[in-house]
Amino acid sequence: MSRNFKSDNVTPVCDAIMASIQAANAGSAASYGGDDFTQRLQTVASEVFATEVAIFPVTTGTAANALALSHIVPPYGAVYCHDAAHIVTDECGAPEFFTGGAKLIGFPAADGKIAPERLASAIAFANDMGVHHVKPGALSLSQATEWGAVYELSEVSALAAVAKQHGLPVHMDGARFANALAHLDCTAAEATWKSGVDVLSLGATKNGALCAEAVVFFDPARARDFERRRKQSGHLWSKMRFVSAQLLAYFDRELWLDNARHANAMATVLAEGLQVLDGASLLQSVDANEVFVALPEACVAALERQGFGFYRWPLSDTPTGVSIRLVTSYATQRTQVDEFVAAARSSAHG
Amino acid sequence: MSRNFKSDNVTPVCDAIMASIQAANAGSAASYGGDDFTQRLQTVASEVFATEVAIFPVTTGTAANALALSHIVPPYGAVYCHDAAHIVTDECGAPEFFTGGAKLIGFPAADGKIAPERLASAIAFANDMGVHHVKPGALSLSQATEWGAVYELSEVSALAAVAKQHGLPVHMDGARFANALAHLDCTAAEATWKSGVDVLSLGATKNGALCAEAVVFFDPARARDFERRRKQSGHLWSKMRFVSAQLLAYFDRELWLDNARHANAMATVLAEGLQVLDGASLLQSVDANEVFVALPEACVAALERQGFGFYRWPLSDTPTGVSIRLVTSYATQRTQVDEFVAAARSSAHG
Amino acid sequence: MSRNFKSDNVTPVCDAIMASIQAANAGSAASYGGDDFTQRLQTVASEVFATEVAIFPVTTGTAANALALSHIVPPYGAVYCHDAAHIVTDECGAPEFFTGGAKLIGFPAADGKIAPERLASAIAFANDMGVHHVKPGALSLSQATEWGAVYELSEVSALAAVAKQHGLPVHMDGARFANALAHLDCTAAEATWKSGVDVLSLGATKNGALCAEAVVFFDPARARDFERRRKQSGHLWSKMRFVSAQLLAYFDRELWLDNARHANAMATVLAEGLQVLDGASLLQSVDANEVFVALPEACVAALERQGFGFYRWPLSDTPTGVSIRLVTSYATQRTQVDEFVAAARSSAHG
Amino acid sequence: MSRNFKSDNVTPVCDAIMASIQAANAGSAASYGGDDFTQRLQTVASEVFATEVAIFPVTTGTAANALALSHIVPPYGAVYCHDAAHIVTDECGAPEFFTGGAKLIGFPAADGKIAPERLASAIAFANDMGVHHVKPGALSLSQATEWGAVYELSEVSALAAVAKQHGLPVHMDGARFANALAHLDCTAAEATWKSGVDVLSLGATKNGALCAEAVVFFDPARARDFERRRKQSGHLWSKMRFVSAQLLAYFDRELWLDNARHANAMATVLAEGLQVLDGASLLQSVDANEVFVALPEACVAALERQGFGFYRWPLSDTPTGVSIRLVTSYATQRTQVDEFVAAARSSAHG
Repeated sequence: MSRNFKSDNVTPVCDAIMASIQAANAGSAASYGGDDFTQRLQTVASEVFATEVAIFPVTTGTAANALALSHIVPPYGAVYCHDAAHIVTDECGAPEFFTGGAKLIGFPAADGKIAPERLASAIAFANDMGVHHVKPGALSLSQATEWGAVYELSEVSALAAVAKQHGLPVHMDGARFANALAHLDCTAAEATWKSGVDVLSLGATKNGALCAEAVVFFDPARARDFERRRKQSGHLWSKMRFVSAQLLAYFDRELWLDNARHANAMATVLAEGLQVLDGASLLQSVDANEVFVALPEACVAALERQGFGFYRWPLSDTPTGVSIRLVTSYATQRTQVDEFVAAARSSAHG
Repeated sequence: MSRNFKSDNVTPVCDAIMASIQAANAGSAASYGGDDFTQRLQTVASEVFATEVAIFPVTTGTAANALALSHIVPPYGAVYCHDAAHIVTDECGAPEFFTGGAKLIGFPAADGKIAPERLASAIAFANDMGVHHVKPGALSLSQATEWGAVYELSEVSALAAVAKQHGLPVHMDGARFANALAHLDCTAAEATWKSGVDVLSLGATKNGALCAEAVVFFDPARARDFERRRKQSGHLWSKMRFVSAQLLAYFDRELWLDNARHANAMATVLAEGLQVLDGASLLQSVDANEVFVALPEACVAALERQGFGFYRWPLSDTPTGVSIRLVTSYATQRTQVDEFVAAARSSAHG
Repeated sequence: MSRNFKSDNVTPVCDAIMASIQAANAGSAASYGGDDFTQRLQTVASEVFATEVAIFPVTTGTAANALALSHIVPPYGAVYCHDAAHIVTDECGAPEFFTGGAKLIGFPAADGKIAPERLASAIAFANDMGVHHVKPGALSLSQATEWGAVYELSEVSALAAVAKQHGLPVHMDGARFANALAHLDCTAAEATWKSGVDVLSLGATKNGALCAEAVVFFDPARARDFERRRKQSGHLWSKMRFVSAQLLAYFDRELWLDNARHANAMATVLAEGLQVLDGASLLQSVDANEVFVALPEACVAALERQGFGFYRWPLSDTPTGVSIRLVTSYATQRTQVDEFVAAARSSAHG
Repeated sequence: MSRNFKSDNVTPVCDAIMASIQAANAGSAASYGGDDFTQRLQTVASEVFATEVAIFPVTTGTAANALALSHIVPPYGAVYCHDAAHIVTDECGAPEFFTGGAKLIGFPAADGKIAPERLASAIAFANDMGVHHVKPGALSLSQATEWGAVYELSEVSALAAVAKQHGLPVHMDGARFANALAHLDCTAAEATWKSGVDVLSLGATKNGALCAEAVVFFDPARARDFERRRKQSGHLWSKMRFVSAQLLAYFDRELWLDNARHANAMATVLAEGLQVLDGASLLQSVDANEVFVALPEACVAALERQGFGFYRWPLSDTPTGVSIRLVTSYATQRTQVDEFVAAARSSAHG
């Protein structure tokens, strides 16, 4: 663990969540979500988001995103998103497969945040093209973005306004939603439906769970028949209690926020430690738990040799050196960060 | 638990498997199956099946079946199966969705076992129809069958021979494969590839796991690109170690067979206790862990009133009374069975 | 032509329709349905059906059926139909492909007509099964049926009533709709929306066109976005005027009915001539333009030797001899029918 | 016609092709391609391409492209193409739908021609990403390109070489293949398989046919089961003879090339006439039958007022004025071109 900054998905399960799984393991329970844990989750999630939601636990982020999109976008629809969005580059075509043919239209943007004008002009183009082009279907935002930035509430609202003006629902890929929320320091409601989000892919796996994600509809009516999609795609668990139990623990006593705050703080420490090095430059704003930084090639190579885990991550605008991505998590310890920074410093000065 | 015979999926996780999950929860591990547990599973599974297999853990039986079929049947293909097969009636169209349009062609058969002549004549019909009809694509067998019977090895071989004569691969839905294997008292190799099975959906969840199924290819070359299908359908876990750890424990020291033997034995005791009652008749052979029995309506109603859990399960040939399904599991205790039989007896004689 | 009773799709194009195609071939015209012919077709079709319809020309019956069903049934839905329906046996999985996974649930019925109780009990079964089973999605009727019978209006209404009671739309596969209408001797409105039909696949190709079918929605609001589905499946013609021109000629001065009446009459003559032969028995009611008849094997073989075209068509209940299918068309001449009957008579008595 | 430069799909059917349709309309013929015309087409096409091909007539370009791609790219695959390719912007998601989820990855390029380095680096990216990203599936080239340029043979070969180096098949969208061939003045074999093309969408509709396109496989073994895909998507015509007859006429005595040469020549005249006008600038190379030209706004408006048909076609690099697209065809007359140029000249000088 100690040297692995590759991703927040290399982490173990945090204690409270593992305890909750074990507590759920008593006697028989109704299968397929008929159990008490899953029922309670509906209530708890509605409290967390301060409105009645329909929440559907699944076990991978790809499933959450693809299922959510397939429920709001027709096969002949377009999903507008960032061109480095997880749904574009990291899900092996899952959104296209689940929707039965929808097209992802990705916009470039240096910081991973879509510009409202881009969205507006893409919709206008589609409307001009008429039946020949895919129909505007949905807007999908990643919060936090793939490059570690967090949309301000006003940015989310502005994008959602363009979408809604054209009748498009808004999806949020919240694989790292807790990290974003911790950064924004607002309520979960403000970060989502109060800013115009209609459906959220809520991640917990990267933030301490074993396998827990959820699709959250802020208008339960919109979720009609969603459980069929989940079933048809093989994502309805028989022993559902064990996913729901993870999410209950996740929300309990703000575990999700505590974990995320810690991860974010570690990223900040890491960024601050690295950016002052000779030849280093921070490439993205560090709002959540990811650090994109350019370091001299010799420094990167030295860190690799010393066994630190991270990815070389080519960004288009790297000024000099080699750009790498470092991810912190709930499990990252301050000493690990310090160790990394120290190693980088000695390499940089070597 | 004590009164719940609804399904083997209402059971908790058995101790050895939960212990294995916890043991896997130490430090960071490579994600998406790059971990040691998943690597080891390849070796262990190859030992279990006495040949080099390619094994892909997933977490639901529907996913296992639909993914397996989508890999061996084209969108314009036919899957031949029993008309009460799980893939036909219980997966909400998952095979059709995953394959992109294949058609399931179900054969009726009183005991859940497909007759080779049925298969042969359906293939002949398709060949006569040519391009207008779906192309013969695969044979899918459920072992144990949906009605609790187990195909003899010679029956599997005979069906596989018809399939192979026409170039069709053979899929086995082994949601209750361990129960079948325990009944057959043969090797896992004999029950599968030595009898002509090409790909197995191997279930563990009903037999003690938290969420562990696997797709097993007996010719690894046939599995080419299968990992893409798993990913595209959202079934590639990031923290894969926790599924693989379940399967490792499942195979370890024959846990899977011990669990299955116990479940089967409890079903036998249950069947023997019930069939001697006045007005009772056993409707299906009790080879595995399911009992289909007809009881007088008053008796069934009394059992329901007393809080026993089971399904009324209409079969076409119920002679008199009401047919019900009772499922035992690794967790069923002898006292529970005795209690059920006693309650049935007193109702029947009431 | 003269000896070919294989199908009504082996016929040439009738004169009026070919003339209409040529008349449309003057100068440039807006593409993709922006032309005058296609615009006029909307008006004409609305007159024919005595209500405002939305009509979408396509060029194959499989496209019409699959597109229509994909617009009214979700991927996780069930289509209830006869088990020998064209959509089940003759479209190579097109409905499954276009819908993205829906399941066709076929009912057996000796005369090709679905029984309302069958439909009701299948819906009840699905509702019992809940999320595990495909959701009741639509009823699809073939009119005329695959076996040459025609549903009476009261039969259509009774089936539609069951469907509607459960919220299901009703699709009619009218590949031979004109033949049915000619038999029923009612209005097109009575045969469709007044009897509960929501969307019609209207065939013209078998009844004199070159390549003209259409999807007709009786509630235009239900057709929303249908043009996208047609485009996405490659069924939007650039030179649409040439399909629309066929349909305009088809409706003009009752050409469609005249053609169908002739075809039906020829089938009646054929049936009457054959059924009196020694060893012959009519297997189905001859309401439209198909004759299913059992003849002695020697007679069938002799007809084949003499070069008559027809299919051997095994039906489950053939009493004795060999069952064959004979199809008449707008182009069938009385002398051809007489010749066939005479040949059969001499063979039968040979 | 005379003033319509909107597209080559607004044209009528040319005489020789209409005559061929009528000649095919004699008596009965085997349906679904069992007719003599379709059989002969196999031979003729093999002669045209100087190798044994498998040719499958369909009736829209979208169908040809989507079917071809679905046969060579898996659901989890990537199709590399230009970002303004017809398959990307004008087919309403057909390739995604037919493939069951494949992703189109479009490259920008000023002249519509993909650069080999772009292709190579996209494949390298995909290989780096592994299972998370769609798998490199195929290269698709438009010949002529959407912007009226024609790839030189060496350009096709260079791109195909990159594709083949990574095992990818090469698809050519030849909606205007005849125009390209006329420009290249080489053999059909040189323009396709001798340059590395594996499957061609061959267009005829824009070049004089009523509704005739074809998918041509240069290795018939690769076409295995393709007829099932065509059927399943509703693109197998019952009266196939009428499509095949169009294609036979198209190839006969070089009709296709004569038509294309004329269209290309008219485009050249048009371009030469316009580019000398004050304020005019040619935006793309005029290799085939499309002219992209920038004209002063006043001039464009005047042409529109006078009833000339064409599209305003925003290109990213229009220097000044308004960019428009003009398409010529086999049916364009020299007087029409002269009339257009004269009108533009007087407007420009107005």
